[in-house]
Amino acid sequence: AASDVYKRQKLNNDLKKFESEICERIGEKRYLHTIRVRDVAIDLANIYGVDPEKAEIAGFLHDCAKIRDEKKLIKEAKNQGLLITEEMKRAPQIIHSHLGRVMAKNLYGIDDEDILNAISYHTTGRPNMSDLEKIIFLADYIEPMRNFDGVDVARKLAKKDLDSAMYFALNNTLKFLVEKDKYIVVETVLARNFYEEMSLSLI
Amino acid sequence: AASDVYKRQKLNNDLKKFESEICERIGEKRYLHTIRVRDVAIDLANIYGVDPEKAEIAGFLHDCAKIRDEKKLIKEAKNQGLLITEEMKRAPQIIHSHLGRVMAKNLYGIDDEDILNAISYHTTGRPNMSDLEKIIFLADYIEPMRNFDGVDVARKLAKKDLDSAMYFALNNTLKFLVEKDKYIVVETVLARNFYEEMSLSLI
Repeated sequence: AASDVYKRQKLNNDLKKFESEICERIGEKRYLHTIRVRDVAIDLANIYGVDPEKAEIAGFLHDCAKIRDEKKLIKEAKNQGLLITEEMKRAPQIIHSHLGRVMAKNLYGIDDEDILNAISYHTTGRPNMSDLEKIIFLADYIEPMRNFDGVDVARKLAKKDLDSAMYFALNNTLKFLVEKDKYIVVETVLARNFYEEMSLSLI
Repeated sequence: AASDVYKRQKLNNDLKKFESEICERIGEKRYLHTIRVRDVAIDLANIYGVDPEKAEIAGFLHDCAKIRDEKKLIKEAKNQGLLITEEMKRAPQIIHSHLGRVMAKNLYGIDDEDILNAISYHTTGRPNMSDLEKIIFLADYIEPMRNFDGVDVARKLAKKDLDSAMYFALNNTLKFLVEKDKYIVVETVLARNFYEEMSLSLI
């Protein structure tokens, strides 16, 4: 336990070094969101027996590439060697997730695949996510300042069953995209179909 | 024109030979639906300068494999050498379209790729459909006995612009699948995203 505390402090200190850099990149409002996501992620990790340290790091870094200005975002993607796919051009909101993975690796020294995947897939989801991936996706979806139809259902489900919560969140996201005539990322549909099957008996 | 009439009669006679066989396979109710789809398809073909004969054949045959009993349907698919994919297992309603193509070819001697594709994709749609493919998809969606929220909008759009009508129909289908917690076929999402882009300026 003592070494755990030591490790935790060490990591916190590691992350602290990047606070001002990240805050400057993504803005204070978005930075405060990442803190809330980190806190929810730690809570969910404790419920589901996932390493809370990984949840802390992934939650803290999930939006580290969320540069608001799209031109700057794409420039940074090029700087970091991230390929911009056709799908990213149609759905630019997914760029920051994949760029976040690259920046977490290149700038913040994260090499844990599970943490990196949690950052990559926190916007689209994907089939067969790890518990940590689901936790970051859901923490982002339900953090205390989120306010949309269904957020209370999502909050309850997230504490009860990760797969059912994932289905609810993904299906609700699709509903929004359909109603607003927005592009639908294929990975999100694959994920939604996957968690529909996983949660059939639970919702 | 005289040879056109001759050809038309010849084809009608060809199709007539199969009437009772198809009616027996799919039932009278569904058979009457195919006649209505054929008639709407011919009307749309005339609006958009598509060969009305092809529309007639494709409309008449689009549901030629719509066997209601799922076990019999899958047995027939095996008989005809159609591979049942994982997606077909999750969304059995798409089997009859792909089986219809095979039966139109094997049993009714259709070898026109455009007609065969119109049968294959009349349930899911796909990106980059030919006008004939769109016409069969839409005729099936709007035939006079269809009655659902939005069918009147779809009928008006179908006469105005095929791509806008496709987007409306595909998006409405997705809305239904999301609301009813049903499996979503990926091809339908690809098609919906494609026609969203094609129809942006028109709806």
